[in-house]
Amino acid sequence: MAGPPISRGAGARQRVLRAALEVLDADGLAGFTMEAVARRAGASKATIYRHWSGTGPLLIDAMDATFRPFPTPDTGRLATDVAQILGAFVTLLENAPFPRLLAAFIDAAERDPTLAALHADLTRRRREPLLVVLARARDRGELPPDADPELLTDLLTSPFFYRRFIAHRPVPPTLVDDVIARVLPPASNG
Amino acid sequence: MAGPPISRGAGARQRVLRAALEVLDADGLAGFTMEAVARRAGASKATIYRHWSGTGPLLIDAMDATFRPFPTPDTGRLATDVAQILGAFVTLLENAPFPRLLAAFIDAAERDPTLAALHADLTRRRREPLLVVLARARDRGELPPDADPELLTDLLTSPFFYRRFIAHRPVPPTLVDDVIARVLPPASNG
Repeated sequence: MAGPPISRGAGARQRVLRAALEVLDADGLAGFTMEAVARRAGASKATIYRHWSGTGPLLIDAMDATFRPFPTPDTGRLATDVAQILGAFVTLLENAPFPRLLAAFIDAAERDPTLAALHADLTRRRREPLLVVLARARDRGELPPDADPELLTDLLTSPFFYRRFIAHRPVPPTLVDDVIARVLPPASNG
Repeated sequence: MAGPPISRGAGARQRVLRAALEVLDADGLAGFTMEAVARRAGASKATIYRHWSGTGPLLIDAMDATFRPFPTPDTGRLATDVAQILGAFVTLLENAPFPRLLAAFIDAAERDPTLAALHADLTRRRREPLLVVLARARDRGELPPDADPELLTDLLTSPFFYRRFIAHRPVPPTLVDDVIARVLPPASNG
């Protein structure tokens, strides 16, 4: 059966997600409707609805598509593992479309508890690599037994969000190392 | 001369700022126009324009109006000073209308460099109390001479923004003390 472009081929889903990002970038959240995404993707609104129940789930999937996960490092040294993860994260935060999408999300989540819950899940998944390297470091004695990986993950990542979205200041090249030096116990970053 | 309500009395400015917050709360940034604020404040659009050149400066002033500054503490002990400042900040972050306004701002600043610059200024002013207590602690030897108050201020405040806007998790009552214990050197929080 010959459907509209979206139902043909494996790239259809990617095309809609790309269209969603383009709409968001051009018109902001205010212009982010199923209709606008359908128009941009060259698909019918009904077709988009067949894959996504509304703008919330579509936004989350589009956001997920901007995130390129990379292998969790395992260099045997905590500070090096953390520096690799944070370095990749800074790159993500400095390049379109991720920051604009995240900013739109922050605003939308204030108004919509479903979106907030979806974003909380997404954040939880993105914290995983850091939680893993911190737990490994604790297991091999590089962190004290009472170190709290959740708190350390908050402390290690939040300064970069803060710079970008609250202080609107550039991230200096030394910031990753400075944050690591201040947050991780001296034993693990000598 | 009998003008519209806004030009009468000292409360006029406050009334417009309150109206601006109400519009933002009800309609989000998408509905935040000079016209909508004028309607809500019971003033003419021309009258609002006489006081503010556009939605950007009006947003900033409305945001400023939600912020109740309090005296910079000077207890003689850095950890106590910082705990007081962060405690007040958590209260601000947990109560309307500040968080919703800030979320709208984060999104708007991505699209508008003027707003980003205005928000950067506002953030700089709000960092002052922490920078002051950190500099005092350094002067009296409670922090090492090479401690960087700017970096410490980033590390001390950003976890609370992160929790609220990125992770969408509540701030547990112990978080202020946990952050202080991890970020400030042991000498200053024993």
